[in-house]
Amino acid sequence: MKHMSSLTPGYPHLMEEGVSSEELFQGRFLHAFRDTVKLPDGSTSTREYVVHPGAVMVVPLLDDGRVVVERQYRYPVRRVMIEFPAGKLDPGEEVLACAQRELFEETGYVATEWVRAGVLHPVISYSTEFIDIWFARGLTQHERKLDAGEFLDVFAATFEELMTWSREGHLTDAKTLTALLWLQNIRSGAWSLDWQVTGDPEAGR
Amino acid sequence: MKHMSSLTPGYPHLMEEGVSSEELFQGRFLHAFRDTVKLPDGSTSTREYVVHPGAVMVVPLLDDGRVVVERQYRYPVRRVMIEFPAGKLDPGEEVLACAQRELFEETGYVATEWVRAGVLHPVISYSTEFIDIWFARGLTQHERKLDAGEFLDVFAATFEELMTWSREGHLTDAKTLTALLWLQNIRSGAWSLDWQVTGDPEAGR
Repeated sequence: MKHMSSLTPGYPHLMEEGVSSEELFQGRFLHAFRDTVKLPDGSTSTREYVVHPGAVMVVPLLDDGRVVVERQYRYPVRRVMIEFPAGKLDPGEEVLACAQRELFEETGYVATEWVRAGVLHPVISYSTEFIDIWFARGLTQHERKLDAGEFLDVFAATFEELMTWSREGHLTDAKTLTALLWLQNIRSGAWSLDWQVTGDPEAGR
Repeated sequence: MKHMSSLTPGYPHLMEEGVSSEELFQGRFLHAFRDTVKLPDGSTSTREYVVHPGAVMVVPLLDDGRVVVERQYRYPVRRVMIEFPAGKLDPGEEVLACAQRELFEETGYVATEWVRAGVLHPVISYSTEFIDIWFARGLTQHERKLDAGEFLDVFAATFEELMTWSREGHLTDAKTLTALLWLQNIRSGAWSLDWQVTGDPEAGR
């Protein structure tokens, strides 16, 4: 299976090696670098990218078969987007703890069962960001605790609605579309998840 | 269908309005801004984001049922990634022309039929980037013309291989996973495409 490994040793003809790194910019949110890299042919080039702490996305499954999604205005793309709940990792935070925290803060839901499906990389050409993909079930709703300055709607949608919105171009967020690939294949039985009971249903609060 | 519109008027309680904009950084590739925005409750906040020209991704369908993919080292995530061919729009370039150019330059393939499936937004929290999703068929292979400093492998994979790599975590690029959602639903007949013959098969060169 060497041909599909993400490890470096198998592909010396593709590898780039960092030679030096300079900080381009430290904003309140964006932290950017420009690295000089040695290319496979020995020449050098530069790579500019954003350093990101990583994030977690949650696919919350309701008992009635629907899923919990959000509607949020995203300023960079100047659109109201339909998305699964997600958020950045706090320093030192475990991914499951982040998933439980973001689900609760943004939607008010607490789940008794959690499972990690996988990971996605949203923007491999200019960010270090990864998004860990988690599914949650056994949901009960409480009062959410949005961050100051955070405005988003929470609603339940059927899988069929989400697929229609995707096909028709109303749902275009790549992390959410990736989650729908997982959801479709889990629903059909092609892919499976190994659910874990988290014990205290209040643990995620 | 107002509840899923991406237009602004329906959601005044979610909208953010730009008040001012300052350039944070102009690199060779990254171009970043910090805008001050008025939130729905009248308070203000800031949004930092990268301005991107937009990009096109191509799903190249071979006559034998396989698809053409690439293996490329992506420095920001320090991994060799499996991806569909893609690239940024040149200034003033039409998306189909960009799709044809990128497919040819990166893989050497020229296609006789093209169709636009949709669009995805890879990183709605801090980039303006969109990626237009195109499918191509009627492929013939020629000699590719990689940009200087570009190193990537081109190979053919079955749909089943790509799905296995996705499930097992060897394929984690969000644009490619989104394309697989499209491919899966087109293959099953749930979603359809309206193919256009481009005429001269050399037109994409």
